[in-house]
Amino acid sequence: MIIRDRPPGWRLFFAVRGSILHRIKWEVLTTVTIATIVTLVHGRVFEIKVTLTPIPFSLIGLALAIFLGFRNSATYDRWWEGRRHWGDLTIQCRSLARLILAHLGRADPVLAAVQVRRLIAFAHLLRHALRETPDQDSAAFLSPADQVMLADSANRTDALLRAISRDLAEASAARRIEPIQCARIEDALTALARVQAGCERIKGTPLPFSYTLLLHRTAHLYCLLLPFGLIDSIGYTTPLVVGLISYTFFGLDTIADEIENPFGLLPNHLPLEAICRRIEIDLRDALGETDLPPPLAPVESCLM
Amino acid sequence: MIIRDRPPGWRLFFAVRGSILHRIKWEVLTTVTIATIVTLVHGRVFEIKVTLTPIPFSLIGLALAIFLGFRNSATYDRWWEGRRHWGDLTIQCRSLARLILAHLGRADPVLAAVQVRRLIAFAHLLRHALRETPDQDSAAFLSPADQVMLADSANRTDALLRAISRDLAEASAARRIEPIQCARIEDALTALARVQAGCERIKGTPLPFSYTLLLHRTAHLYCLLLPFGLIDSIGYTTPLVVGLISYTFFGLDTIADEIENPFGLLPNHLPLEAICRRIEIDLRDALGETDLPPPLAPVESCLM
Amino acid sequence: MIIRDRPPGWRLFFAVRGSILHRIKWEVLTTVTIATIVTLVHGRVFEIKVTLTPIPFSLIGLALAIFLGFRNSATYDRWWEGRRHWGDLTIQCRSLARLILAHLGRADPVLAAVQVRRLIAFAHLLRHALRETPDQDSAAFLSPADQVMLADSANRTDALLRAISRDLAEASAARRIEPIQCARIEDALTALARVQAGCERIKGTPLPFSYTLLLHRTAHLYCLLLPFGLIDSIGYTTPLVVGLISYTFFGLDTIADEIENPFGLLPNHLPLEAICRRIEIDLRDALGETDLPPPLAPVESCLM
Amino acid sequence: MIIRDRPPGWRLFFAVRGSILHRIKWEVLTTVTIATIVTLVHGRVFEIKVTLTPIPFSLIGLALAIFLGFRNSATYDRWWEGRRHWGDLTIQCRSLARLILAHLGRADPVLAAVQVRRLIAFAHLLRHALRETPDQDSAAFLSPADQVMLADSANRTDALLRAISRDLAEASAARRIEPIQCARIEDALTALARVQAGCERIKGTPLPFSYTLLLHRTAHLYCLLLPFGLIDSIGYTTPLVVGLISYTFFGLDTIADEIENPFGLLPNHLPLEAICRRIEIDLRDALGETDLPPPLAPVESCLM
Amino acid sequence: MIIRDRPPGWRLFFAVRGSILHRIKWEVLTTVTIATIVTLVHGRVFEIKVTLTPIPFSLIGLALAIFLGFRNSATYDRWWEGRRHWGDLTIQCRSLARLILAHLGRADPVLAAVQVRRLIAFAHLLRHALRETPDQDSAAFLSPADQVMLADSANRTDALLRAISRDLAEASAARRIEPIQCARIEDALTALARVQAGCERIKGTPLPFSYTLLLHRTAHLYCLLLPFGLIDSIGYTTPLVVGLISYTFFGLDTIADEIENPFGLLPNHLPLEAICRRIEIDLRDALGETDLPPPLAPVESCLM
Repeated sequence: MIIRDRPPGWRLFFAVRGSILHRIKWEVLTTVTIATIVTLVHGRVFEIKVTLTPIPFSLIGLALAIFLGFRNSATYDRWWEGRRHWGDLTIQCRSLARLILAHLGRADPVLAAVQVRRLIAFAHLLRHALRETPDQDSAAFLSPADQVMLADSANRTDALLRAISRDLAEASAARRIEPIQCARIEDALTALARVQAGCERIKGTPLPFSYTLLLHRTAHLYCLLLPFGLIDSIGYTTPLVVGLISYTFFGLDTIADEIENPFGLLPNHLPLEAICRRIEIDLRDALGETDLPPPLAPVESCLM
Repeated sequence: MIIRDRPPGWRLFFAVRGSILHRIKWEVLTTVTIATIVTLVHGRVFEIKVTLTPIPFSLIGLALAIFLGFRNSATYDRWWEGRRHWGDLTIQCRSLARLILAHLGRADPVLAAVQVRRLIAFAHLLRHALRETPDQDSAAFLSPADQVMLADSANRTDALLRAISRDLAEASAARRIEPIQCARIEDALTALARVQAGCERIKGTPLPFSYTLLLHRTAHLYCLLLPFGLIDSIGYTTPLVVGLISYTFFGLDTIADEIENPFGLLPNHLPLEAICRRIEIDLRDALGETDLPPPLAPVESCLM
Repeated sequence: MIIRDRPPGWRLFFAVRGSILHRIKWEVLTTVTIATIVTLVHGRVFEIKVTLTPIPFSLIGLALAIFLGFRNSATYDRWWEGRRHWGDLTIQCRSLARLILAHLGRADPVLAAVQVRRLIAFAHLLRHALRETPDQDSAAFLSPADQVMLADSANRTDALLRAISRDLAEASAARRIEPIQCARIEDALTALARVQAGCERIKGTPLPFSYTLLLHRTAHLYCLLLPFGLIDSIGYTTPLVVGLISYTFFGLDTIADEIENPFGLLPNHLPLEAICRRIEIDLRDALGETDLPPPLAPVESCLM
Repeated sequence: MIIRDRPPGWRLFFAVRGSILHRIKWEVLTTVTIATIVTLVHGRVFEIKVTLTPIPFSLIGLALAIFLGFRNSATYDRWWEGRRHWGDLTIQCRSLARLILAHLGRADPVLAAVQVRRLIAFAHLLRHALRETPDQDSAAFLSPADQVMLADSANRTDALLRAISRDLAEASAARRIEPIQCARIEDALTALARVQAGCERIKGTPLPFSYTLLLHRTAHLYCLLLPFGLIDSIGYTTPLVVGLISYTFFGLDTIADEIENPFGLLPNHLPLEAICRRIEIDLRDALGETDLPPPLAPVESCLM
Repeated sequence: MIIRDRPPGWRLFFAVRGSILHRIKWEVLTTVTIATIVTLVHGRVFEIKVTLTPIPFSLIGLALAIFLGFRNSATYDRWWEGRRHWGDLTIQCRSLARLILAHLGRADPVLAAVQVRRLIAFAHLLRHALRETPDQDSAAFLSPADQVMLADSANRTDALLRAISRDLAEASAARRIEPIQCARIEDALTALARVQAGCERIKGTPLPFSYTLLLHRTAHLYCLLLPFGLIDSIGYTTPLVVGLISYTFFGLDTIADEIENPFGLLPNHLPLEAICRRIEIDLRDALGETDLPPPLAPVESCLM
C-alpha cells in the first residue's frame, strides 16, 4: 500500500511513485503513435479517407464509462472487503487474547499463553498462504508438536484452529474454563475461519472473465479508432487528447486489474505484513512480553 | 468459472476462450448486415430516405446505458451473493467439523465422524440440487440408513440437517456434549440452512421479467435503427461502428443473462464442484484421513 | 412472478406476457399521437413555430435518466429485500422445525408437532395479511383454541408467536427442553418477528411521494415536448423515436411503481403462495407426513 | 409521510398535496423571471451580448447531475435507515413483550406487565426526543416512581432501559426467570439502545456541509446562467425550458434537504406517531387489554 | 463537523464558513488566470492556434465525472462508516453501563463503578489515538494502578479492555455475576474492539493512491486545457465557465480528500469530542452523579 501525501501544485504531473503510468506506458504510447500517424496522413488509410466523426465515440464512450465505472466499483469493493477481513482478523485476535487470558488464564496460564501464541502464528500462516510466499514466521510461535502437526495438514490454518479448539474443549471438560466462555471463544475462532474463507473467496474468484475481456476489447478499439474521429475537428492536438483519454481509460482499467486480487505484493495491494506485525505486537504485549518489535514502516512510501 | 490471464497486446482481440462473442454472434451479425445494407442504399428504404440523425440515439443511448448498467450491477450482485453463500458453506462446514470433533469427539468419536461425513454429503447434495444434476457423490459419505431416509424425503438437504440435529440432541441429553456447545453447533446448522435457502432464492427468483424484456427490446431497436442515424455522418464506417456498439450492448446484456442464475454449468458460472472438493479435502483431513483427492484443476481454463 | 424464457430472435418484439406495454399503452399512445400531430403541422401551434431544439432535451434527459435510475434501484432494492425476508421465513421455519423436533420432540412429541404446525399457519397468515386477502389456509394447521385466540387478536401473526413462546416457556420450566435450546428457539421466533415487521415496513412505507410526483411530471413533460425538439432534425421519424423513448421511460417508471410494494397480486410481484406451499411441504415432511401437496406450478408463466 | 395514489392522466400536473413545488416556488420563479428578461433583451446585458452557448451547460450539467444523484442517494439512504431503525423498534418491542410475558410472566406477572408498559413509554419518549416535541404520552405507561426517576435523568430513554434491566437482574437473581432468558431480553434491550443511538446519529450528523453548499451554489449558478446559453438556439421557449430544468434540479435538491433528517414534522418525514400507535396497540393487546385505540389514519393524505 | 443552516437566497453565494473555496482558491485562480490569458490571445500559443474544440472535453468530462463520482461515494462511505463506528461506541458504552450496573452492581457496586468509569476513559483514549492529540482526559476516570498499567502498554485502548475483562472474570469466578451475563458483557467488549479496529482501518488505509493521483492529474489537465476548447464558441465568458467548472471539480475532489480520513480536526471531520462528552454525560448519569458537564456546543458553527 502506498502511503504518501498528494504532491502539491505542478509537481503533481511529475510524481512517479504510486503512479500507474509505468504499467500502461506501452499501451498509451501505441495509441499516441497511431494518433500521430493518423494526424500526419490526415485520417487517410491507403489514400482512403476514414469517415469517422466524434459522434460514434460519444455514443460508445458513455456506455464504456458506465461499464468501466461498474468494474471499478466492483474491484474496489473486493479490495475494501479484503481489508475488512484483515481488520476482523485484528479484532478477533485481540478479543481472543483478551478472553483467553482473562477466562482460561486464571486456571491454566500456560495453556492460555500457548493459545495466544498460536493466534499470532495463524495470522502469519494466513498471510503467506494468500501471498503464496514461503512461511518463515509462524514457527517461532508454535510448539514443535504443533509444527509437525501442521506440516502434515492439507489446510494449515484450519488445522491450527482445530488444535486450539481441541485444547479448549479439554480445558472446558476439566472446568478450567466456564463452558459459556469456552463457547464465546469458539465463536471468535469461527470468525477467524470466516476471515480465512472470505480471503480465499476473493483470491480465488475473479470477476467473470467475459466482463474483463469485453471491456478491454471495447476500450482498446475505442482508443485505436478515436484519432480518426477527432482529426477533422481538432487537428494536430489529436495525439494529445488521445493520450489523455487513453491514459485515463487504461489507467483506471489497470488499477482495477491490480486491486482485483488485493493480497499480492504490488504497490496498491494490502499491507498484510504490517497488519501481522501489529497483531504480533498487540498479542505479545497482552502476554506481558517487553521485547516487542517496532511497527513496520513504509519503504519508499510503500507499506508491505 | 474461467481462470486465465488477460491476453496481452494484440492477442487480446483474438482470444476465444472466455469470450461472450460466440453467444451473440448471430445478433451482432444481423445488426452488421443491416448496417451494411443501409450503407449500400444510403439510408433509403424503398426509395424513401429515413431522416434519422444521431440525436435520438444520444438521447436513448444515455438512458439505455444507465439501465443496462443497473441490470448489470443487479445480476453481478446475485452472482457474488451466490459465491458468498458458498463461501459461508465452506466456513460453516470447517467450523462444524472443528466444533463437533473437539466437543462431541471427546465422548463419542464415532458419532462425531458420522456427523462430519454428513456435512460433506450436504455440500454435494446442495450442489446437485442447484445444478439439477444426478447426485452420485453424497452416498459415499452416508450410512445406508441415512441413504434410505434421504430417498424418502421431499427436501433431502434439510432432512440431512434434521438427522444431524436429532443425533446431536440425543448426545446432549446423554451429556456426551455440553448443551451450550450443542447450541453452538445448532447455530452453525442454521447457517447451513441459510446457505441452502439463499441459493434457492437466487436460483428461483430471476430479475422481474418486465425489466429484461424492456431492456432487450430497447437495445435491439436501438441497434437496428442506429445505421439510419449514422449513415449521413460517418458513411461507410457505419457497419464497423454498429458492430462495435452492438457487441458491447449485446455482450453486456448476455453476460448479465448468463450470471443471473450463477449455479449452472456455463463458463461464467460458479465453480461449485471445486468448492465441494475443497470442503471434502478439508473435512476428511480433519477426520485424520490421508488418501485425500487433489483439488479440482481447471479444464481448458474452466473450473467447474 | 413471471417465469418464462426470454423469447429468441424476432419473436422478442411480439411477446405479450410479461410485457409492461399493456399498462402504459395509453400514455405511449398519447405521446405518439401528439408527436404525429406535431409532425403533420411541422412543429407549429396556431401558426406559431415552437422554437425548441434537441439541446434542452439532452440537458434534461441526462438528469432525468440519472434520477429514474435512482428510483429504479431504490424500488428494486425494496423488491429484493422483500424476497430476502421471505427467504428468511423459509430458513427460520425449517430451522425452527429442526430444533423443535430434535430438542423438544424428544420429551414432548405432541407439543412439538403442534408448534411446527403453528409455523405453517404463521406463513399463511403473514401472506394473507400482506396481500389483504381473506385467510382460508391457516385454520387447517391450528387447534380450535388457537383459532379462537387469533380471532380476538389485533395482530394475529404476533399473537401466534406469543402462543408458541408461552408453551415453550412452560416446557422449559418443566425441563422438557433445555433452557439454552429454548433460548435458541426464541431467537428464531424473533427472526420471524423480524420478517413480519420488515415486510410491513416495505408495504407501509412507499418512496417519498414527492420524488414520485416530481419524476412523473418531468418525464411526462419531457415526452410531451420532445416532438417539438426533434421535428426539425428527424422529420417524419419523430413519432417513432418519441414512441421508443416514451416506451422506455414510462415502462421503467411503471415497473418501478409496480414493484414498489412487492407483496401484491400483479405479475411482477413475489410468489408468496409458492413460498408458503414450499414451507408447508418441508414442514409436513419434517413431521413425517406423506400426503404432501405438490409444489405450486406457474399458471400462464405466472407464479403466484 | 404522504400516503396517496399517483394522480392519473392530466391531473398529474395539477396535484398540489405532496408536491415539492410550493417549497421552491420563489427559486423557480426567480430563474424563470431572469430567463424571461434574458429572452426579451436577446441575451444582452447593458447592450453587450453574453456569448454563452449550450456547450458549457452540457459539460457542467453532467457533473451536476451525477453529484446531485450522489447526494440524493445519500439522503435517501439516511431516510430509509431511519425507517429501518423504527422497524427494529417494532420488532424488538414485540419480541421483548413476547419474551417477558412468556418467561418472566410465569413467575411474576405483575413485573412483566410493568416492563411491557415501560416499552410503550420508551417508544413515545424516543419519538418526542427525536422530534423535539413535548412528551405527554409516556406518563400513562409509567409508574409514579419511574416518572420521577426519568425527570431527573440526562438521557431519559437510556434511564428507562436501565430501570428495565435493574428489575430484570433482580428477578433473575431470585430465579423468577432463567438467566439465559434474561440474557436474551438484555440482548433485545441493547437492540433498543441501538435504535436510539442510530436515530441520534442520523439526526445529529448531517451530510458534510461543504457538499451541500457546493452543490447548491453550482446548481443556482447553472440555472441563472442557463438562459444566456439557450436563448440563441431555442428563442422564446427559453423560460419554459429553464423553468422545467430548475424545477427538476431545485426540486430534487429540496427533497434531499427535507429527508436528510427524516424525524421531523414535514410531509415527507417518517410517520413516527403512527408507528408508536402500532406498538402501543400490539403491546397492550399482548397484555390482554381490550380498549385498544385505533391505528392512526392519514390526515389530508399525510400520516404523522 | 459544521452545523449551520443553509444560507437562504443570494447570501448563498457569499457564505464563507463551511465553504471549501478557501482550500482550493489558488488552484481555481490558476485555471481562471490561464483561461483569461487564453481568452486575450484568442487561443493562440506563440502565434499558433490551438485547435481544440469542446468535443474532447465532453468525451473526457463524462469519464471524469463518473470516476470523481465513484471516488466521492467511496470517501463518503468511509466518513459515514467512521460515524457509524462512533455510534456503535455510544451504543456499547451505554449498554455496557446498563449491564454492568444491573448484573455486576448488585453484588459488587464498587467494581461496577470502576468498570463504567473505565469505559469513559476508553472513549477518550480512542479519540486521542485517532486524532494523534495528547490525552489529558482519560486519567480522571482511571485508578492510579490503571494509569501505570496503560503507560507501559503498546496499545492502551486494548490494554484497558483486557483490564475490564480480567476483573470481570474474577467476579464471575466468585459468582458475583452470572457467567451468562458475564459472557454478554464480553460480547460488548468485543464490540468495542471492533470499533477500535474499524477506526484504525479507516485511518490507516487510504484509497489506493494510484486512483487519487490519476484523478487529480486528469482533472487538472482537463481544467488547464479547457479554455482552448471553449474560446471559439463562448468567447469572453470562457474564464467564467472555466472558473465554475474548476470550482465544482476541484471542490468535490478536495472534499473527498478531506473526509477520506474523517477523524482529524478539519471542519468536515467527525465531532469526536462531542460524542465523547455525550458518553461521559450518559455514563456518569448512570452512575448517579449529578455534576454533569453540559453537552459540547458548536464554536463558530463547528462542532469538534
